[in-house]
Amino acid sequence: MSETAQSAVVLLSGGLDSTVLLHHVVRTLGRAPVHALSYRYGQRHSRELECAAWQTKAAGVAHCIIDLSFLGELLKGGSALLPGATAVPDLKDLAEAQLDQPPTYVPHRNMMLLSIACAYAEAHASRDVFYGAQALDEYGYWDCTAEFVGRLNRVLSLNRREAVIVHAPFVKLKKAETLALGLRLGVDFSHTWSCYRGEDVACGACPTCVERLNAFRAADATDPIPYRVPSEK
Amino acid sequence: MSETAQSAVVLLSGGLDSTVLLHHVVRTLGRAPVHALSYRYGQRHSRELECAAWQTKAAGVAHCIIDLSFLGELLKGGSALLPGATAVPDLKDLAEAQLDQPPTYVPHRNMMLLSIACAYAEAHASRDVFYGAQALDEYGYWDCTAEFVGRLNRVLSLNRREAVIVHAPFVKLKKAETLALGLRLGVDFSHTWSCYRGEDVACGACPTCVERLNAFRAADATDPIPYRVPSEK
Repeated sequence: MSETAQSAVVLLSGGLDSTVLLHHVVRTLGRAPVHALSYRYGQRHSRELECAAWQTKAAGVAHCIIDLSFLGELLKGGSALLPGATAVPDLKDLAEAQLDQPPTYVPHRNMMLLSIACAYAEAHASRDVFYGAQALDEYGYWDCTAEFVGRLNRVLSLNRREAVIVHAPFVKLKKAETLALGLRLGVDFSHTWSCYRGEDVACGACPTCVERLNAFRAADATDPIPYRVPSEK
Repeated sequence: MSETAQSAVVLLSGGLDSTVLLHHVVRTLGRAPVHALSYRYGQRHSRELECAAWQTKAAGVAHCIIDLSFLGELLKGGSALLPGATAVPDLKDLAEAQLDQPPTYVPHRNMMLLSIACAYAEAHASRDVFYGAQALDEYGYWDCTAEFVGRLNRVLSLNRREAVIVHAPFVKLKKAETLALGLRLGVDFSHTWSCYRGEDVACGACPTCVERLNAFRAADATDPIPYRVPSEK
């Protein structure tokens, strides 16, 4: 409980959006100390957590990785992102009918991660949790929308002491706009990871790879990470 | 995903309320299969989890204990219920000023536990989570109220497939009424545990012991568990 009331908690996956968010909170908002929280929840690979660790060092903030790997067993079969599940599909192979809740959706993941982040914030006398939700993804998740964040804050506001507030400053931005902000902040995107597949090199075909490549194209910039299939210009 | 849509998930701590809830859901509502979820989150003792296991056997339902013991470290100092914290106070020693959020409050605990239960429910094709919240405790928690449950359900309803619903059928009952329901259902209360202190015998003085003893007194029944200090009639 030694932190000041100005401290902030940032949810950091190691992907593009949350990495820009981290640097945005540290440099633009000047919040300090910032606690970055990452989760290990049985993802197919640990590459994004390594990137998250690198970025917190670059930003000079504390990093806490929380092990939720029990979720892999608990939600078995509930998501293509968890162990033992079906393969992550290419974006082009996703049927229209699946777009309401794509196979990479993890049931209630963001509410679990945000609840834990709010608990951490409250225990450390912080009242602000930053969340890199982006509602305008290639396909959307119900727990990445402004409405989700708004309703969640209505729950949190019942706290009888100082309520924790979840902020999602990128929720209305396109990925290319978030990327452009990151480029202005000098974020090193070679240490971010978006690919859903657990391979050495990003696949270039899964939904997040396609989104990421589209964002770099729209921002007229070059993605510094290597791809298995060279991207078409 | 082999369960039917009629299955239900019950949050079971091993205390009085959630134990009555389990038997209420199984016998009164006739929901099957029921999955009982308990959590190990660094509590001072495991007695209540042993009671939870006993009750699920008695009810003939599956029991899943989820290890959240990382919360003890994560929320260090954030609650008198977690390791390394200050002692649990006697109810009579709680200052009025503390009653808005008593020292036994665990930051955002119930939202964390419910989020995980909802994830579990969705992954197992269940849409009903039962929660033994009681708003009329000797002192209250903001995350045990009907309003909390209502607002949480507003968040959950954003799910684009079948939304999980959190039910808190005891939220408006007094503990003595919940106890009376349990007595009618034939619940064996010798296998329930309420005391916040991690001792062999219930203390009889901490807030939940006092509540429990008051409830038995109001229901004109005898609590079958032993207490360190014999209760005054």
